[in-house]
Order: sequence, then structure tokens, then C-alpha cells
Amino acid sequence: MKSIQELFGIEIPIVQAPMAGVQGSALAVAVSQAGGLGSLPCALLGQEAMRAELETITQGTRRPYNVNFFCHVPPQPDPAREAAWRAALAPYYAEFGIDPASIPSGPGREPFSEAALELLEAWRPPVVSFHFGLPAAGLVARVKAWGAKVLSTATTVEEACWLEANGADAIIAQGLEAGGHRGNFLSDDQSRQMGTLALVPQVVRAVRVPVIAAGGIADAQGVAAALALGAAGVQVGTAWLLCPEATTSALHRVALASEAARHTVVTNLFTGRPARGIVNRVIRELGPISPSAPAFPLATSAMLPLRAAAEARGSGDFSSLWSGQNATGCRAIGAAALLRELAGG
Amino acid sequence: MKSIQELFGIEIPIVQAPMAGVQGSALAVAVSQAGGLGSLPCALLGQEAMRAELETITQGTRRPYNVNFFCHVPPQPDPAREAAWRAALAPYYAEFGIDPASIPSGPGREPFSEAALELLEAWRPPVVSFHFGLPAAGLVARVKAWGAKVLSTATTVEEACWLEANGADAIIAQGLEAGGHRGNFLSDDQSRQMGTLALVPQVVRAVRVPVIAAGGIADAQGVAAALALGAAGVQVGTAWLLCPEATTSALHRVALASEAARHTVVTNLFTGRPARGIVNRVIRELGPISPSAPAFPLATSAMLPLRAAAEARGSGDFSSLWSGQNATGCRAIGAAALLRELAGG
Repeated sequence: MKSIQELFGIEIPIVQAPMAGVQGSALAVAVSQAGGLGSLPCALLGQEAMRAELETITQGTRRPYNVNFFCHVPPQPDPAREAAWRAALAPYYAEFGIDPASIPSGPGREPFSEAALELLEAWRPPVVSFHFGLPAAGLVARVKAWGAKVLSTATTVEEACWLEANGADAIIAQGLEAGGHRGNFLSDDQSRQMGTLALVPQVVRAVRVPVIAAGGIADAQGVAAALALGAAGVQVGTAWLLCPEATTSALHRVALASEAARHTVVTNLFTGRPARGIVNRVIRELGPISPSAPAFPLATSAMLPLRAAAEARGSGDFSSLWSGQNATGCRAIGAAALLRELAGG
Repeated sequence: MKSIQELFGIEIPIVQAPMAGVQGSALAVAVSQAGGLGSLPCALLGQEAMRAELETITQGTRRPYNVNFFCHVPPQPDPAREAAWRAALAPYYAEFGIDPASIPSGPGREPFSEAALELLEAWRPPVVSFHFGLPAAGLVARVKAWGAKVLSTATTVEEACWLEANGADAIIAQGLEAGGHRGNFLSDDQSRQMGTLALVPQVVRAVRVPVIAAGGIADAQGVAAALALGAAGVQVGTAWLLCPEATTSALHRVALASEAARHTVVTNLFTGRPARGIVNRVIRELGPISPSAPAFPLATSAMLPLRAAAEARGSGDFSSLWSGQNATGCRAIGAAALLRELAGG
């Protein structure tokens, strides 16, 4: 198995997990400059914003960096489910004085597309990672054509084998401890999701490309454990969320540093797709998984005004407080210093 | 943190997980003789059987061994739930020609008791471990009075702190990858269960007694990873199930060695309490968690005749095929050889 230092041209085998909504170019630059692989999450960026972020990254570092995209298939809108979802949220709209008619429905997030690819071709990012599988083979080939390495996430052995067969240069093995969206794409059955300690060695055994362990890794001991399992590197997300370079909201920072972070769940309430975050009021009251929540990403738009209204009152009751199962690595220190700590000093 | 070699008087910091129904004294003797800590599961043993097994162990080895007990609070029988459970199983009784009136209801498993304690006092086993918390303080004190070290399982940081405060000499941190019964006892909320890689470092940070990592550890790399996380040792279960010293049924062995072992779930169908096993027909058809299943251990008796009838036809459709999320370590070799492999050669 090739080292990911060699594969990506980096010094430290640590990937900063792309985390849409809580970080942008600043964190990516800091990590890449310090010798890791910084990542820019593009799932929530329009073309102009993406261009601006890429400009900032390439001005901030000459070292390799990663750009990340979702590659889901946009669902057909389902008016009945949308109505059921809005009915489930109606008491909250009333509580906050929100007029439901004022809430637009809409996709929220675009998958990787021809347009994004054309934009990227001007920048030729050295690493491009995907979540929820891979885009169409033609798009993958064009990404690889400029020399980029392609990464994606597997949550089962089957997904790892599929990614290798479809051109991934390395595979992120995402254990269920991980925060944010589960990367599963061959099966929606959440009972198939495994803990990192069980998943990583099984993926390492099943594929030839380097495996990057993700989920629950929060400090140098966690990194050492993942490497002991045969991983070529690690991807760390949650631990960066208190860094000044992250754009994590104040409410989210407080939650991460509190006892509340001890209880995370996988929930579909915020986007329609299972993702791990800290339990809050809306999760407690609706349950973490709602069958009414429209398919990803269509559940997003109905929740956003509640989030905004609650946050304006200083409450994270309706916010997606993404976190993995081990928030003990969160440190309010610079990302470069955190990277050095993760690497063992 | 004291080493568990020193604490228990063993050479290799590997505990063979007690696994009621699939092993007895033979596996315990083999592991203890080879320098690990062998375990005798007593949850399903009557007094006579327990005495015979203890006799066999002490004749087979002079080295330390562990005896394990459940310490649940027996539930009040709930006739309505029992009736709902039998109704759920009625189509299967019909399929196998079983007369439901012939099936006794009953507890199935006894918790640790005064009687068991008195029996143990004659043998003074050097280690006594419990699942589902700890027995009453008076019983714990009497176990410790003969010099035994007391072990129990934590699935959350809160449970670990509780066990330390209540006298545990070491704590097994059970990640959700583990096979068999979840050890949770302060909360029934399964969403609080964590992956081993996230749980172990948080428990290590929270307690002063040695922490033994369990869940998903299947080979020397897994052992090394757990030690890197700060664990003083590991507990391994599933990996022993193909050893000749285990009493694992032929059907269970076939399942463990097959692709089926890639999909395990936490289910309450077999005993009433969540436990991880390989997905089979009854889990697929009733779903892994049934609200009708009577409280542990009362769900057991209604399933047993189905298991017997199906197994007589060569089918594991109604068997509890306990397994953790990583069955790749299962090897049909002697337990002593497996122990050496787990210890890194």
C-alpha cells in the first residue's frame, strides 16, 4: 500500500475532513501549510463563492489541498412527504411566529456537476474528494485528467470494493463514530454501519489502494491506533471545530465543549440524510430519524428558518450541531498546532 | 494505571470474553494455561453444572481465571407483553408444528445471587466479572473478601465512573462493535452506545483503574490499536468461536465463516435485551428490535423451541448467532495458538 504522503505529496498523513457549513478556505490553508491535507467543502458553495475560496487557498499555500463535493442523485420532489414534514414542524413555526408560506422549498445542495468540473479545471486542485459514492465515470476521468487524485468514502467493505473498482485512488473508511453525514451509498440500511475499529481492518484487507481511517479519531493516540489497524492515514473532523480558523458558530462551539457532546446521534432531521450530531431539542422531540423528512437534501429548507429564529434567541435547539462520538480532541488552538499534536508532537 | 498482567497475575493482557452458550471450561482452561485470562460464563449454569465446570478449570490450570455472571434485576412478568410476543411468533409455531401451550414461560437466566456466591466461596476464583452493572454492595464485598478482583463492563463514560465508584478493580470498555449482550445498565438508550475507538480514550481519561478495550478487536493489529488508545488490555470474544475448545454449534460456525457475518445487528429478539448477532430470518422478518419482546430474560423461552426445531432441520433461522462486527479474526485453530497470534506472535 502506497503511503498517502507520497500519493498526495504531503508530509503528515492526516486529512482535515471537509465540513460544509463550519469551515472554508482558512482552515484548509492552515492545515495544508502545516503539512497535512486541508480540505475545502464545496457542497454549499455557489460558483462565485467556490472561485473566491479557491483563489484564497492558492494564494495562501502552494502545498496540496483537497476540494470536496457531494455526489448524490437529486431526488424527485414528493409533495406529500414535503407536506407531512411541514406539518411535523408546524408547532415550531407557530412558536417562533414563522409564516410557513414564506419558506421556500428547494434543493439546498447541488451535487458535483459539469459546471463545477469546468470551474475546477482552471485550478486543477491536486486532490478531489467525494461523499456518497463517485460522480459519473466521465466526470471522474476528467478530474483525473489534470493529475488529481480522487478520494471517496466507504462505510462498508462492499462500498470500499466498489470505490476501488470505479477509480478511487484512496478510500476513506468512515466508522460510525464520525460526525456529519454518513457516506453510505450502496445501502441505506444504517444497521450495516460499523465502528472504526471493526471497519478499517476489513477494508484494508479488501482493497489495494491506501485506506484513510475516519471516525472517533481525536488525538495522537487515536491516530496511532488507526495506523496500527493498517490505515495509511487518518481523516479528522470534529477536533478542528474549536480552532479559530473554523467558522463554527458560537453556539456550536459551546455545545462541543460541554457535556452535551457526550451524546450524539445519527439524525436525518436537518437534511434528509443520516448525519451525526449532538442531541438537541428538535432531535429529542421528533426523534433522530423521521420518516417524514424529505429525501436529501430536500429536508433542509423547512428547518432553516427555525434554526435562524432559534439562533437569534441564542439557542441551538434547531441547529445541526455536527459532532463525532469523540469531541474530547476539540481544542481552541490554531489548526497548525492541533495538526502537530495529532501527529504526536 | 496498573497493568492487568500485574492486577490479575497473567502474562498476556488479553481476556477471553465470557460467552454463555458457546463455550465452557475447555476454552477458559486453554486460554488461561497459555497466559491469558480465560473466562467461564455462568449465566446459563445451574449450581451442579457450575461446580463441575469449576472443578474442570481448577484441575486443568493453576493459573488465574475469571468467572462471569449477569447481574440484572429480574423483571416482573408482564402477561400482556408475553401474549403479544407469543402472537408475534405464532406463525412460526404453526410453520414448525409447535403447540404454543407446550412452551413453558420462565426466567431462562438467573442473576448473581447469594447461592452462587456461597458456591464460589469454596473455589475462590481469582477474578469475577459481571455484566449489566454490579450486584449489591454486600455481595461485591464478599467476593473481594477472598482476594478476587472484580470486573464489569461500561458502555459509556457515565457507566465507567459508576463502576469505579462502586468497587470495580478494572473496567471493560465495550464498544458497539462487540458481539453478544450490550453491557449498558444506566441507560437503555442504544443511541448512547459508542464505537470502541471513541469510547476507550474517553473512559481511560475518566477513571483511574485499568481499562480493558472490547469490541471489534480480532487480531494483533486490533490489540495494538487498543493499547495505543490507552487501554491496559483487551477482551476478545468472537475470534475464539471457531476454536475447537469452543462449543459453538456447527450452524453458528458456518455463519461466522461466511459472508453473512458481514452484517450483524443489535437485536432484542432472543432474550429481551439488546445483543449483537448475525442477521438471520427471524431478525429480517420481525426487525431486530421488537417492542413486544418481554423484558430480559423473559423473551428467551418463547424463542427456544423455534430454535430447536429449525436447527433440527439444519437451519439457523431462529438461532442467536452472536458475533461482533469483525468476524475476520475467527480461526479454526487451538485457543492457545490464537492467543499467541493475538499477542503478536
